[in-house]
Amino acid sequence: MSGLVIREARAEDLEAIIRLHEEDALGSHGDVWSPETRPAYEAAFAAIERSPENRLFVALDGGEIVGTFQLTFIPNLTGRGALRVKVESVKVKAARRSGGIGARIMAFAEEHARANGAAMLELTSNKTRKNAHRFYERLGFERSHEGFKKKF
Amino acid sequence: MSGLVIREARAEDLEAIIRLHEEDALGSHGDVWSPETRPAYEAAFAAIERSPENRLFVALDGGEIVGTFQLTFIPNLTGRGALRVKVESVKVKAARRSGGIGARIMAFAEEHARANGAAMLELTSNKTRKNAHRFYERLGFERSHEGFKKKF
Repeated sequence: MSGLVIREARAEDLEAIIRLHEEDALGSHGDVWSPETRPAYEAAFAAIERSPENRLFVALDGGEIVGTFQLTFIPNLTGRGALRVKVESVKVKAARRSGGIGARIMAFAEEHARANGAAMLELTSNKTRKNAHRFYERLGFERSHEGFKKKF
Repeated sequence: MSGLVIREARAEDLEAIIRLHEEDALGSHGDVWSPETRPAYEAAFAAIERSPENRLFVALDGGEIVGTFQLTFIPNLTGRGALRVKVESVKVKAARRSGGIGARIMAFAEEHARANGAAMLELTSNKTRKNAHRFYERLGFERSHEGFKKKF
């Protein structure tokens, strides 16, 4: 784990990132890398790259992509204008889970948020992910909110 | 209610918007409009205005600001690159609650999200806001996630 490197994702990382999404059956987002789906992912990657408020990261161990996550900076009025950062799409390679990669990712997210003037991290986690909830609570997150979604 | 107008917020609306935040004791965000806090709100308002992915709205009835909310467009890879919109800081003037303003706001948010190519609305709501949760479920939202926050 000492060799873990976290850096912003590049276009050539995209397939490996989606392969991490593929391993995630719980979220039920239907993510799979194929010739048919590739253009949609490339378009979304380009939109993230263009966005000044979104950053997509990968975690590498020995050159292999073993994790990914996205940070969204959200300027808002609440809390006397406190900038917040939403942590999104945290994925760790299935074979490497429970090995500390998630904790490294979250520590990086918090440092990056603080260094860029944010006052808070927030995230939502599917109610079925009980282990993840305990993990976030151990890291000092408060499970204070209900998370709602409406797909069109 | 037929006269309700929803439009993007302007700098001159800022005090009225923060007055709506002031009425909200539940969120415990300590929001209050004063000479001391005004610069922080003005800076946050300017950051929202600059952001291509954030839009702050007000709802007016007869020229009076009776509601506010913010939409954040989040490009991301999950769900085959489905653009999502986070609804943030929904506030309705206390004296005007349960009068349909919230429903009008959420309908506007959904229309605006769809018209701009989003595939999903998401939001979090403090666990103490039981009435709000029933409201969102009536509108077709699924309470599928736990919402975590960590303040620095």
